[in-house]
Amino acid sequence: MSDNAELNVPEIGVGMLGYAFMGRAHSNALRSLPFAISPPPAIPRLVAVSGRDEVALKSMARRYGYERTYTDWRDLVADEDVQLLDNGGPNNLHAAPSIAAAEAGKHVFCEKPLARTAGEAHAMLEAVEKAGVKHGVAFNYRFVPAVRLARDLIRQGRLGRIYHFRAMYLQDWLMPHYNTPRLWRMDREQAGTGAIGDLAAHIVDLGRFLVGEIRGVSAMTRTFIDERPLPDGSGTGKVDVDDAFVAAIEFENGAIGSLEGTRLAAGRKNYELFEINGEKGSLRFNLERLNELQLYLVEEGQSETEGFRTIMVTESIHPWLKHWWPPGHIIGWEHTFIHELAHFLDCIANNRPVAPDGATFLDGYRAALVCDAIVESAQSRRQIELAYEDAGLQPTTQPR
Amino acid sequence: MSDNAELNVPEIGVGMLGYAFMGRAHSNALRSLPFAISPPPAIPRLVAVSGRDEVALKSMARRYGYERTYTDWRDLVADEDVQLLDNGGPNNLHAAPSIAAAEAGKHVFCEKPLARTAGEAHAMLEAVEKAGVKHGVAFNYRFVPAVRLARDLIRQGRLGRIYHFRAMYLQDWLMPHYNTPRLWRMDREQAGTGAIGDLAAHIVDLGRFLVGEIRGVSAMTRTFIDERPLPDGSGTGKVDVDDAFVAAIEFENGAIGSLEGTRLAAGRKNYELFEINGEKGSLRFNLERLNELQLYLVEEGQSETEGFRTIMVTESIHPWLKHWWPPGHIIGWEHTFIHELAHFLDCIANNRPVAPDGATFLDGYRAALVCDAIVESAQSRRQIELAYEDAGLQPTTQPR
Amino acid sequence: MSDNAELNVPEIGVGMLGYAFMGRAHSNALRSLPFAISPPPAIPRLVAVSGRDEVALKSMARRYGYERTYTDWRDLVADEDVQLLDNGGPNNLHAAPSIAAAEAGKHVFCEKPLARTAGEAHAMLEAVEKAGVKHGVAFNYRFVPAVRLARDLIRQGRLGRIYHFRAMYLQDWLMPHYNTPRLWRMDREQAGTGAIGDLAAHIVDLGRFLVGEIRGVSAMTRTFIDERPLPDGSGTGKVDVDDAFVAAIEFENGAIGSLEGTRLAAGRKNYELFEINGEKGSLRFNLERLNELQLYLVEEGQSETEGFRTIMVTESIHPWLKHWWPPGHIIGWEHTFIHELAHFLDCIANNRPVAPDGATFLDGYRAALVCDAIVESAQSRRQIELAYEDAGLQPTTQPR
Amino acid sequence: MSDNAELNVPEIGVGMLGYAFMGRAHSNALRSLPFAISPPPAIPRLVAVSGRDEVALKSMARRYGYERTYTDWRDLVADEDVQLLDNGGPNNLHAAPSIAAAEAGKHVFCEKPLARTAGEAHAMLEAVEKAGVKHGVAFNYRFVPAVRLARDLIRQGRLGRIYHFRAMYLQDWLMPHYNTPRLWRMDREQAGTGAIGDLAAHIVDLGRFLVGEIRGVSAMTRTFIDERPLPDGSGTGKVDVDDAFVAAIEFENGAIGSLEGTRLAAGRKNYELFEINGEKGSLRFNLERLNELQLYLVEEGQSETEGFRTIMVTESIHPWLKHWWPPGHIIGWEHTFIHELAHFLDCIANNRPVAPDGATFLDGYRAALVCDAIVESAQSRRQIELAYEDAGLQPTTQPR
Repeated sequence: MSDNAELNVPEIGVGMLGYAFMGRAHSNALRSLPFAISPPPAIPRLVAVSGRDEVALKSMARRYGYERTYTDWRDLVADEDVQLLDNGGPNNLHAAPSIAAAEAGKHVFCEKPLARTAGEAHAMLEAVEKAGVKHGVAFNYRFVPAVRLARDLIRQGRLGRIYHFRAMYLQDWLMPHYNTPRLWRMDREQAGTGAIGDLAAHIVDLGRFLVGEIRGVSAMTRTFIDERPLPDGSGTGKVDVDDAFVAAIEFENGAIGSLEGTRLAAGRKNYELFEINGEKGSLRFNLERLNELQLYLVEEGQSETEGFRTIMVTESIHPWLKHWWPPGHIIGWEHTFIHELAHFLDCIANNRPVAPDGATFLDGYRAALVCDAIVESAQSRRQIELAYEDAGLQPTTQPR
Repeated sequence: MSDNAELNVPEIGVGMLGYAFMGRAHSNALRSLPFAISPPPAIPRLVAVSGRDEVALKSMARRYGYERTYTDWRDLVADEDVQLLDNGGPNNLHAAPSIAAAEAGKHVFCEKPLARTAGEAHAMLEAVEKAGVKHGVAFNYRFVPAVRLARDLIRQGRLGRIYHFRAMYLQDWLMPHYNTPRLWRMDREQAGTGAIGDLAAHIVDLGRFLVGEIRGVSAMTRTFIDERPLPDGSGTGKVDVDDAFVAAIEFENGAIGSLEGTRLAAGRKNYELFEINGEKGSLRFNLERLNELQLYLVEEGQSETEGFRTIMVTESIHPWLKHWWPPGHIIGWEHTFIHELAHFLDCIANNRPVAPDGATFLDGYRAALVCDAIVESAQSRRQIELAYEDAGLQPTTQPR
Repeated sequence: MSDNAELNVPEIGVGMLGYAFMGRAHSNALRSLPFAISPPPAIPRLVAVSGRDEVALKSMARRYGYERTYTDWRDLVADEDVQLLDNGGPNNLHAAPSIAAAEAGKHVFCEKPLARTAGEAHAMLEAVEKAGVKHGVAFNYRFVPAVRLARDLIRQGRLGRIYHFRAMYLQDWLMPHYNTPRLWRMDREQAGTGAIGDLAAHIVDLGRFLVGEIRGVSAMTRTFIDERPLPDGSGTGKVDVDDAFVAAIEFENGAIGSLEGTRLAAGRKNYELFEINGEKGSLRFNLERLNELQLYLVEEGQSETEGFRTIMVTESIHPWLKHWWPPGHIIGWEHTFIHELAHFLDCIANNRPVAPDGATFLDGYRAALVCDAIVESAQSRRQIELAYEDAGLQPTTQPR
Repeated sequence: MSDNAELNVPEIGVGMLGYAFMGRAHSNALRSLPFAISPPPAIPRLVAVSGRDEVALKSMARRYGYERTYTDWRDLVADEDVQLLDNGGPNNLHAAPSIAAAEAGKHVFCEKPLARTAGEAHAMLEAVEKAGVKHGVAFNYRFVPAVRLARDLIRQGRLGRIYHFRAMYLQDWLMPHYNTPRLWRMDREQAGTGAIGDLAAHIVDLGRFLVGEIRGVSAMTRTFIDERPLPDGSGTGKVDVDDAFVAAIEFENGAIGSLEGTRLAAGRKNYELFEINGEKGSLRFNLERLNELQLYLVEEGQSETEGFRTIMVTESIHPWLKHWWPPGHIIGWEHTFIHELAHFLDCIANNRPVAPDGATFLDGYRAALVCDAIVESAQSRRQIELAYEDAGLQPTTQPR
């Protein structure tokens, strides 16, 4: 892994927490990054991976080249070679290890949602800020080239004032015919919420990244299937998180919109879609076709040719594409993590700010405030108003 | 116009109120229906058209073959040859003429929204029910073949239990660069509401037609541009209706969803879209591609070929298509009115019930209740619960 | 039908030959035109319809309002009230009635393909030219708004030099599972060819309309199912025309491209698609979504937003749309005939030239030359070069 | 790179020829494969890379971890650690190094087109067959999951008899406004042909892979821009290869179709599309949306729901997807090389046959025969008939 030695790029020791879906996605990115990004900002050294299942850990280490394994995350955090904790564990393991790592002076990159509640997220934010380490939340869709292009176009004023943001994130893996067991993602103690933390968090972050802060939330939630077989076959377990939510939202800048997420939309696999309407144009994005961005621009005096254009975001002038292939040779979902981790390593290696291109724990906390508001609005049947008092770092809604 | 005499189909005298967009769309349908639908259920006789502008009336009469014109709708209602009042006037002219016509024993077909408020709609409903005449509301999208197919598939249980209904109706004709004047549609006195009555009414009706009654509404509204040039050039006028709304909704049957409408979605022309997710499949429809219906069906044991299918709803076995052209030869927006008016004339001629295929004043009233709830929720920042007390015919929310 | 009397638009007596698909489509347009097109260029008087089946004729007359019926087309041509012969009969009835009508001084509008062979078409062309009557061929896709827009954009030079034209016309009504009988369209004596005359004729005309004359053709054809049940149940009949063809073509201006047509493309209903690539942009059209045109324009210095745009060709500034509905309210296939017949009536009433906006018998003849070349190339397995000697009006390929 | 030691998978020494686009794509795959494919069939050891430019070689070696570099491919072939020559060089460097490697007993994986002419390809085929080494041609689109699914569905008889195969491969990188220099790809001596070898070779292979052998070809070609700036700025150079081609084709099994390719289709970036129509259904694929496959199936007795379905080919039951991410999390273009090289390494490690899943030099040779036929047909203006005499391994068309 020392191929880039001559480039004089630093090596950064990474400790990975988790070996499931997200552990794999992050590890894949860390392994790909040194030859994919040219030159790489730093070379990740895959020091160790931690988790509970020793067999799975060994397999993970062998596959991705981790030097050692730990069955207790405290050992991972204590490992002197670990400079960066990459926290890909379940939601209930986000706070304690991240805080411990920060206190040990390590940088922290944490999966989303940052925490189960805004209160928990806030404690994490305080810890990393106090420790002065770099912190990031894996809102990886900021690192889709088409999404970055959307952000840049909006920043350039190409859409003018924004009127609307509507986003949905639809999946179907909890449909009855799959008979999906009650994983940790369906248990409030471990997950905090269901579709809200998993799906709303992503589209809330996109709304904040692209449009601005969300000020008001009116929401409804549902748990359509409230009992599921336990993974170990020992019977059934209660599902005490939401399967789905829908929310009307308003932004600080006056725009209104909607957020919607579900794991019960038959045929929708990873259908994250947003549309933004502004006074000079509109934008539309669909994660299942992540190499494309739809753009409508109001054009002076030639309206006979106006229409939504489908931009193939694969030109070398598009964000990150110079690292990849010729136009039309598409990239995939995993590339978002390569971009994101390259950015985070660059922030560490060259002491650059993670925000606003990447998401920090502050972003994770603010997204959590909106997620909390969805829960609270659904319970109280009233609109929740959000106020961001970041100076004092006080959460404005109470953790459940 | 007596071509169908040999068929022994009755002639029904129609009095048209209005000569603008909707007056034209209805008249076009009434003129096309006798040769388009074979055999026609009745032959509309275009007795008279009423409105305020005599020049426009004459032009309208000449174009569509109305026998006479009236500048006072009372004369239209009083005309003995008029058996059916087709009310295509502005919203503030829906109640009085429709009620008067019913009292005069005439059938009434009224544009949507049925009225400016649920209270007004309720009075209309009482009048037609009392008079025992046939009554219909021009929720013409029930008469899109793809929508009817969707309804039939749902009724057959092809989607199983419904989890979600999301609908949006996006247009852009109020975008700043068009400098659209303050028409009656932007004046509360004449229109009642803006996008709500115009756009929400349609998608509320589709939700009711396809899924069931709506029980809860949490909404936000906006008026982004609150002053516009007056049509007569005499200065500017206040816009006191909404430009846009967004609502989270829940249905009696437990489904949740969203409603969204705006006249400020750049590039969206007549983009009415709904998606329904059920336990056995999903449906998606887009009015700008009204000859197509997207359907996903959960299939036993062959999931490698599962996907959303795009049905060209142009086969002769599809609703109404036997009257039209071979497969793939698409029909247009105006055809929905031909289907709808053929249905309504059939109900008159053969004393058939307008509902549930067509919408009655009861449907118009219930849609108005939801529209009122959107307004009320946006004002009160709380969720509005709807209870339909049809026995007593009492509106459950108060007209504004 | 005299509603437009005050407009002082002339009445033109129409004699219709045929009562099947095309007879219906033309009649529908003639009946719609007076109120759809405002003001109409002329009012068609539906004098008579001719055909062989008296019952069908009576039904046709009743439905569309024809004053009388004839079972011999000679009587139709002889009818003094008939000023225009609208020939919607099968291909073998195109030549004789059209020539007779021209000789009787009547204008002629004929369905496509103009004739079974270029030789036959040439005789028709000579007859109408000699008679000095207006002549048109129902290449109705020239009258799709999106196609007209495409033509206008190309004419304005928006695409620059044209490199490629590729077109396909795919249907599936001869698929085995439909068990379609051997209609006249599958009999060489009556139809001339199969998919070639039916489908190639249309896309050849579009190629000529949009790009220019075709100079070279290399083709293959197939008859996949060569025996079919006779319509009268009396056994089976031989299919002696092509089910499908494919051709490489070159244009006079140097562009190359392809033509492809079949009646055996499962799932393709009326899928007529073309794409044109030029030095400054590309165009794409699909008849099943006829209200849309896809356009790509090479743009100076802003390539990050380049992409194919989907134009909703429904704005009032788009061709013919001022006669129809607001943006996004789509029109259908039948509207192409309304536009085309309005144009043809205008040419008669105001002595305007049918070409280049509409297709004349010269266009019908030239399309027939290309169709003949497809047949000849497939038989001879060599490229056929076309030379248009219009001065002498000699067909350059021999009729089969 | 020895992470998989415990798995007892063999290490295979790879020598890479070329460091441009294809050298990078193959190297990226070889580096990703050990952790992406679990378990990997073998671990590629990146022994050496050869090419002419020493600086570029060093950069390439550093980026991807090659142990050494050679400026003469003969040294690469002679390197004892090299067991597999991966030939990613320009077309004129396909034959000699591949033949030398085979003669040295090394396995050979070669970029497409296999050679500049069928004659050259044939010599390569003879060499590898004689040497008894494994040989493969990088027709990587066989390794798109959607394409493999298409192949499997056809094999299962889901489409029945095939009537049509139409394919196009459209790009725009030679458009005038890019002012692309005369690279080796535009020089006949180095490239053999232009769009034919580059683009036709791919779609010919797909036609062969999915439908069967091609028997007849009628084609046209064009060089629209025949002079371009030389890369070194020393003036302009002649383009003596084709920019574009179009061909009508027929298959041994009776199907007919079309092949079309160009580098001058404005807005088309890597638009490789095919559609197959059979007696029981149709398939459609577009490389720019490579995670999707469109499928239409004729269904008994429920035709009201028939339509083209868009399969998200991202389920774990789909080809290769178990190695990747959850449904809807798309993969990219580069993944085709990971699949293909994993397959080829597996064939080496476990002595499995490369065909029919992968393409061998026999496939490369047969594709070259069709490419030659395109050239010859365009020159001779007649249809070329192909006969595959594989026993004697005699090319049936003469190399140019």
